Amino acid sequence: MNEARVIVAGASGFAGALAASLVHRHPRLELAAATARADAGTRLDRLYPRYRVPMELTELDLDRAIGADAAMVAYPHGAAAEVVARFVEAGLAVVDISADFRLHDIASYEETYGDHGAPDLLSDAVYGLTELHRDQVREARLVANPGCYPTAALLALAPLAEAGLAGDVVISAASGVSGAGRSGGDRLHFVSLDENFTPYGVDGHRHLPEIVQELERLGGSADGVTFVPHLLPLDQGLMASCFVSPQREVGAGEVRRLYRDRYDGEPFIEVVDDPPGVREVRDTNLCRVHVAVDEVTGRVIAFAAIDNLWKGAAGQAVQNLNLMLGFEETEGLW
Amino acid sequence: MNEARVIVAGASGFAGALAASLVHRHPRLELAAATARADAGTRLDRLYPRYRVPMELTELDLDRAIGADAAMVAYPHGAAAEVVARFVEAGLAVVDISADFRLHDIASYEETYGDHGAPDLLSDAVYGLTELHRDQVREARLVANPGCYPTAALLALAPLAEAGLAGDVVISAASGVSGAGRSGGDRLHFVSLDENFTPYGVDGHRHLPEIVQELERLGGSADGVTFVPHLLPLDQGLMASCFVSPQREVGAGEVRRLYRDRYDGEPFIEVVDDPPGVREVRDTNLCRVHVAVDEVTGRVIAFAAIDNLWKGAAGQAVQNLNLMLGFEETEGLW
Amino acid sequence: MNEARVIVAGASGFAGALAASLVHRHPRLELAAATARADAGTRLDRLYPRYRVPMELTELDLDRAIGADAAMVAYPHGAAAEVVARFVEAGLAVVDISADFRLHDIASYEETYGDHGAPDLLSDAVYGLTELHRDQVREARLVANPGCYPTAALLALAPLAEAGLAGDVVISAASGVSGAGRSGGDRLHFVSLDENFTPYGVDGHRHLPEIVQELERLGGSADGVTFVPHLLPLDQGLMASCFVSPQREVGAGEVRRLYRDRYDGEPFIEVVDDPPGVREVRDTNLCRVHVAVDEVTGRVIAFAAIDNLWKGAAGQAVQNLNLMLGFEETEGLW
Amino acid sequence: MNEARVIVAGASGFAGALAASLVHRHPRLELAAATARADAGTRLDRLYPRYRVPMELTELDLDRAIGADAAMVAYPHGAAAEVVARFVEAGLAVVDISADFRLHDIASYEETYGDHGAPDLLSDAVYGLTELHRDQVREARLVANPGCYPTAALLALAPLAEAGLAGDVVISAASGVSGAGRSGGDRLHFVSLDENFTPYGVDGHRHLPEIVQELERLGGSADGVTFVPHLLPLDQGLMASCFVSPQREVGAGEVRRLYRDRYDGEPFIEVVDDPPGVREVRDTNLCRVHVAVDEVTGRVIAFAAIDNLWKGAAGQAVQNLNLMLGFEETEGLW
Repeated sequence: MNEARVIVAGASGFAGALAASLVHRHPRLELAAATARADAGTRLDRLYPRYRVPMELTELDLDRAIGADAAMVAYPHGAAAEVVARFVEAGLAVVDISADFRLHDIASYEETYGDHGAPDLLSDAVYGLTELHRDQVREARLVANPGCYPTAALLALAPLAEAGLAGDVVISAASGVSGAGRSGGDRLHFVSLDENFTPYGVDGHRHLPEIVQELERLGGSADGVTFVPHLLPLDQGLMASCFVSPQREVGAGEVRRLYRDRYDGEPFIEVVDDPPGVREVRDTNLCRVHVAVDEVTGRVIAFAAIDNLWKGAAGQAVQNLNLMLGFEETEGLW
Repeated sequence: MNEARVIVAGASGFAGALAASLVHRHPRLELAAATARADAGTRLDRLYPRYRVPMELTELDLDRAIGADAAMVAYPHGAAAEVVARFVEAGLAVVDISADFRLHDIASYEETYGDHGAPDLLSDAVYGLTELHRDQVREARLVANPGCYPTAALLALAPLAEAGLAGDVVISAASGVSGAGRSGGDRLHFVSLDENFTPYGVDGHRHLPEIVQELERLGGSADGVTFVPHLLPLDQGLMASCFVSPQREVGAGEVRRLYRDRYDGEPFIEVVDDPPGVREVRDTNLCRVHVAVDEVTGRVIAFAAIDNLWKGAAGQAVQNLNLMLGFEETEGLW
Repeated sequence: MNEARVIVAGASGFAGALAASLVHRHPRLELAAATARADAGTRLDRLYPRYRVPMELTELDLDRAIGADAAMVAYPHGAAAEVVARFVEAGLAVVDISADFRLHDIASYEETYGDHGAPDLLSDAVYGLTELHRDQVREARLVANPGCYPTAALLALAPLAEAGLAGDVVISAASGVSGAGRSGGDRLHFVSLDENFTPYGVDGHRHLPEIVQELERLGGSADGVTFVPHLLPLDQGLMASCFVSPQREVGAGEVRRLYRDRYDGEPFIEVVDDPPGVREVRDTNLCRVHVAVDEVTGRVIAFAAIDNLWKGAAGQAVQNLNLMLGFEETEGLW
Repeated sequence: MNEARVIVAGASGFAGALAASLVHRHPRLELAAATARADAGTRLDRLYPRYRVPMELTELDLDRAIGADAAMVAYPHGAAAEVVARFVEAGLAVVDISADFRLHDIASYEETYGDHGAPDLLSDAVYGLTELHRDQVREARLVANPGCYPTAALLALAPLAEAGLAGDVVISAASGVSGAGRSGGDRLHFVSLDENFTPYGVDGHRHLPEIVQELERLGGSADGVTFVPHLLPLDQGLMASCFVSPQREVGAGEVRRLYRDRYDGEPFIEVVDDPPGVREVRDTNLCRVHVAVDEVTGRVIAFAAIDNLWKGAAGQAVQNLNLMLGFEETEGLW
């Protein structure tokens, strides 16, 4: 395929709107439609002036939509499954940015999110953390795009886990406000967040099962994962600070080599010599990773910084779609 | 003593300026002098308009200074020891806001900070985390005011440590920019920090030995402490997020009772039911503490939020001085 | 009266909550009740932790309420008039923080805000810009607390207007987000405002008639006022930058003297030598004023910086209530 | 010319670094060298990670430098003139981002900035506000790139001035902190600017003569210009809010048409229906303009929002260089 027509369903939210804008300026993708419920009739460049997508949001017309080549779905969890199923059935390449197909275990899904609208499709979905599942993504007809926290945490932890070095794991993460979405009422009012920094989700954040599922697959000790997110007073940016008791003693040099080797040649992963700031990756699909060893305790400390809307959502969705469509992985992402 | 005349040495930095302002508006303290080197001759309310202290900064005149009743020293580490020694010798009650007398072990001090200007005084200094050493502070002639990170981390961990429950400890902390001080060049330029969030001090932050020293004293397992600070894009506020593998299994209820009992009656510690945001304690001497248990891993998660300039520096300094002078502990701090 | 019991109606909004907190910590006021509709049943210190008012919000019970000595009403415009009328009728001293009694001309009110619920009371209401109407405030039974923009703009312009020097007037103002209130949907989402700065209300902001009414009273040329507000990416703080073509040539020295003389002895007005930043007055009832003359064009440039929630709302409301109750004007405001 | 080799002199400052990055990713420009004094030896992507220019800063070697095809000079004012002269002499196309060649009148320059290092070149320099001087830029060998405030103010005012409608002019502008440069000491410390908003330069900002010079050329009434800038607590973004008393009565419709016609076809100017926020143009070379008429006073109110580092500095510099080299004006700027 040389070019593909893409529908973005749920383009009025933060991730969906960025997805629509990335499709719009992609050299080989054409934005066939951008849909939304509440904001149908509004132009996308009125809702998000800085994305400059001169297209009116419309209500989803499934009959027309299935004429497209691919679809990206950025619905709230629970609402995506049925639409995704229709798209898959119609033969579109689908990247689901919602949480609906990330967990392979239906019981785990239902415990975390409630009823599932298309459980039969779960086994078909490929978990789209591109750097971990590239080959499967290429062959997939449905990619479940990872959550923002799992993306950063797993990229910080994967080299350790694959080497059998991830013992107990503590993930202390922090995200900019766009990660919390457009609908949040008082909690996301400027005045609630300005000059503030707050832990949340301490009782169990919905992204934890996703992290555990993938760490297990990589060989990591999954039952030992503690994950606490915090809300940062900034727009875009996410940091996962990971503390790992390795299963055997490792030195700083060995760990650094492990990370450099693992991510060698990865277009979007930069292993860096100093702890990265989230500003360094803002508005990019990059993940900057830094790893160190606490000499006294032997703990490995690994950081991953991403832009939660890019590598943590819409950017990685396009990265996956590129692979599904046989395009260059980085196309439209610089 | 009914009233006391206090000199604040080093009043041009962030902590010193707030200390001067707290003394200035304290009902029983009189600001005898506010000294500074580079900014001598400048009025404090020109340098810090919002503190509204209508006094000119002067160079330190030791002969005059020792006529005061008490001194607060907010010098850079290394520069304080000699001046502190002179004040102590002259019989003033001294609160040293610098790091010079926080570590009891001279070897540990020298490894962390370099040469010490008054090692003989080390054994006289009381570590002024008020809630842990209140009785000694009352009797002290020299109080070493704790660092901002140790204050929050220790208040988050003390009840566990005292109960013999602090096994491995991970402290992921984050501070507003005022904690980094006035002199920082490019690193503290608005443009470097705005929309950014960065880990630092991963190779070993200077506050770690202080945390370890006190945890050991409380009975905690000191060798297991990993501490990583992050820089937040806000002015005042500090959060210590602590992850502890307890030495035996504990339930959420037990832990919560432990914290409520430990801090019962403490005027400046609020044990709260939800994770606190740093905005809740801004411009106060309060520390808000929240504790939870990760049901899956059994880890205890404890948070402490403070204002790094208040409870993390100048506020706690006044709290300590109040005790040293026989005043009500909370006087001048509401 | 030695002490007064005060009800704050509408205490769940930003201005009302601060008013409740100022009453709560006032040495001579007692917070009799804090009312709210949507948030009734919630404790105020849960909604606004930093204000630390340990009181549950209740629905307004008029029969009980009129047993209080005074009332502050912080309702949305249009909703206040009827409640205010009931309080006045029952003999309470009333400060209305809403816009309902600010405009003396009913036609002007209706054009700006719509129907009025108690037009008969309009003539009784005193416009509570304290520094302009102190004597009337003392005698008033109903004070209409000014809007935040008018407070700053009028304090910046009053000395000129009183001297017959205010010709054409341009007011370019900017306010922190708390001035826009708690209910604002997407427009006040953190992501909409972060790193942004936007003019608004260009078609005619509701505060313009208020500014014009008072400037006319002061002798200023009212028909020449252009007022444009902007939204700042910060919480509290408001700046009015005023550009005035004086009716005769004036020098910088003359104008400065005019301002110093006019505000001499005013406890909350500081005439300063440099343009003030809004941070200098944050969390205070102060207004910092600076005046300069553009030597080339002869225009007078006057700035006034306030905290929009304090001097621009709840702080001035307490200042007015102090006068109405015969207390010291500054009581409870430092 | 198909491709050009460009040296960026002064690439360690904010504007120079962005210029280097824009050259680096430009399809037809090659970054020949990026020079700096204090930071020579440091890689640009270490100093500015987010620009991702993998090149080491070097000291300027004039002999090698004049082998390039073009130069952009981002020195402090006063320091640029001599280097610019050498580059022009050697036949390079030069865009000077400093202030040294913006004022045609040497007396005006000296009064504003001090001695000039190459006064003979002043008459050769073309003032590079591209939309006003496009044809001359095309033919120029030296373009004086405009200041950030003049760029926005003049784009907001030009249609009025060209139509003979700019009577008295008040410009109330606000800029993000990057506009103040990298060297600024305490004044640009995060803590000085966070939650703050401050007018400055009230005694006469250096950009005023530049605004006056160009307004005069456009036929505007130059002696009536008052200009006051303010510092915003954000990184990139600049708003010029302009208030103009037109020389004859004009209606909103007429003025809107005037602006739409004037900027029709301009690739970087967007005339919009609502007042723009600076966030809408961040990280772009766009200028969003909105114009309205105050119905009561008849004043025209015009806003222009730009990114001070892009259209206000490095972006416009590339736009000009594109024209000088015969490239498409927009090349490398989307």
